[in-house]
Amino acid sequence: MSRQQREALDALLRSAPRPETPPTPEEQRTGFAAAVGRPAPEAVAVRRTVLGGRPALELEPADAADHGLLLYLHGGGYLVGSPDTHAGLVGELARRAGLRALSPDYRLAPEHPFPAAVDDGFAAYRELLESGTDPRSLVLAGDSAGGGLVLATLLAARGAGLPLPAAAVLFSPWVDLTLAGASYRSRKEADPLFTEADIRAYADHYLGTGDPTDPLASPLFADLTGLPPLLVQVGTNELLLDDAVRLAARAAEQDVAVTLEVESGLPHVFQQQFGRLDEADAALQRAARFLTAHLDAARLDALAPAR
Amino acid sequence: MSRQQREALDALLRSAPRPETPPTPEEQRTGFAAAVGRPAPEAVAVRRTVLGGRPALELEPADAADHGLLLYLHGGGYLVGSPDTHAGLVGELARRAGLRALSPDYRLAPEHPFPAAVDDGFAAYRELLESGTDPRSLVLAGDSAGGGLVLATLLAARGAGLPLPAAAVLFSPWVDLTLAGASYRSRKEADPLFTEADIRAYADHYLGTGDPTDPLASPLFADLTGLPPLLVQVGTNELLLDDAVRLAARAAEQDVAVTLEVESGLPHVFQQQFGRLDEADAALQRAARFLTAHLDAARLDALAPAR
Repeated sequence: MSRQQREALDALLRSAPRPETPPTPEEQRTGFAAAVGRPAPEAVAVRRTVLGGRPALELEPADAADHGLLLYLHGGGYLVGSPDTHAGLVGELARRAGLRALSPDYRLAPEHPFPAAVDDGFAAYRELLESGTDPRSLVLAGDSAGGGLVLATLLAARGAGLPLPAAAVLFSPWVDLTLAGASYRSRKEADPLFTEADIRAYADHYLGTGDPTDPLASPLFADLTGLPPLLVQVGTNELLLDDAVRLAARAAEQDVAVTLEVESGLPHVFQQQFGRLDEADAALQRAARFLTAHLDAARLDALAPAR
Repeated sequence: MSRQQREALDALLRSAPRPETPPTPEEQRTGFAAAVGRPAPEAVAVRRTVLGGRPALELEPADAADHGLLLYLHGGGYLVGSPDTHAGLVGELARRAGLRALSPDYRLAPEHPFPAAVDDGFAAYRELLESGTDPRSLVLAGDSAGGGLVLATLLAARGAGLPLPAAAVLFSPWVDLTLAGASYRSRKEADPLFTEADIRAYADHYLGTGDPTDPLASPLFADLTGLPPLLVQVGTNELLLDDAVRLAARAAEQDVAVTLEVESGLPHVFQQQFGRLDEADAALQRAARFLTAHLDAARLDALAPAR
């Protein structure tokens, strides 16, 4: 069944009309929400709250165990997307992991360029710690630009001397704003969603005159030493394939535990297709298992006698 | 607990005496068997049989489901090791996956240099198909040189026009006999088991005057297109870390589904420490789940209506 699902998804994504004139950021946000947005699953309660000085969604599965908290940073090229567009994806991951989730509405470019998003991600993380959340019971996740932002948040937290969470999951992370990945060429025909020009426009909006090699903008260039275990999932039908592969290689080189899952024939953030594509459900299930396994390990470490 | 386990293991491995004079291959085989060999778990029945013209061990877990067969190729630098030294590791993987396993005693160097081992791996695979095993119910696994040999066997099978199995698992695979990985330098102090000279000696014994870039000796240089989903597990305390990382990157580039799991602070083929090291048991459990998930998927594909 799944090959049929993959091919139907590819055709659907390629059928989206491309506007004649460049849309404004607001038009892009409306279009993205209409094309991608999915509501939270029924078994997940959604509440509006505030985190790190920003509006946020809290998503609580009916059967959430009291074993941890998921901080999720949504994707959208730092330009589009919101906790609402990602309520489905975040709620589905939270439901499968049995975790309460918080999804902050970090500030977007071009109105708020780099490092506004990083500041907001870090503020959310710091507030969770300051309000008493044990970092060993905390996990982070994000997709696309939100995956890069998860890493930037971890780097900012490490830089501020804060303890780090138990693990992080990154769906198709965008970690190189210099766009140096070889897959911009090798996957040019295979990617049904993006052109290199699309992604360069996102980078330009976000960076303004900023440096694309700044490790907080492009965590691929960061010293990753000391980061918690990472799970990176990516499809091979992505311009961003090499962002994921190079990130995993760098993490390994720097002695960071990392799992890279490369799925053949799938597009950017294919997890968003849960319930329609078998591989999306399987990938979310593995991500949930990764998070809970590391939460369990962190809890056991905390119980072990001090040495 | 696990950090203590990791550190104790590292100290234990480093404590092994290194002989004053170079041992003969037979002395190396005896030493390897004494140092590494572990018997099959109690719940696994072991029988001697023949496969592809070579002696082989058959390992059958008491509760093996009738859903597939595991062909395992042991490690040992193409010089040492046997189905008996690996009965513990293979039996433990077979038990966790609920799969009957066959582990052939392929010919070793220097008495039988490249491509003898590949010929034997391929003969084993071909005989399984010829005797009626459905390739969709077959999975392969191997460690170290056996991981490279699994890939060489797949490449030989593809070259002969044979159908490929449902999946393959590679523990710390040795896939580059030119020894070009950057981790030969970066992990020189971290690897408690091997020096570059040790590994070069294995390559010299195996290759004789052969070409180290031959894809059947160094599958890192092969066209991997069309290979089944691969799971690659590796530790960061390995000279061979980069063999695993570069293999995963190449598989991704060639649209092969691949999962790379990099475990921080662990040595070569740490899975051999099952029952003594939590990460070893967890890694074997994930490997077993990977194999059974792909066997299930292959069975469902076979049941789907033809298109």
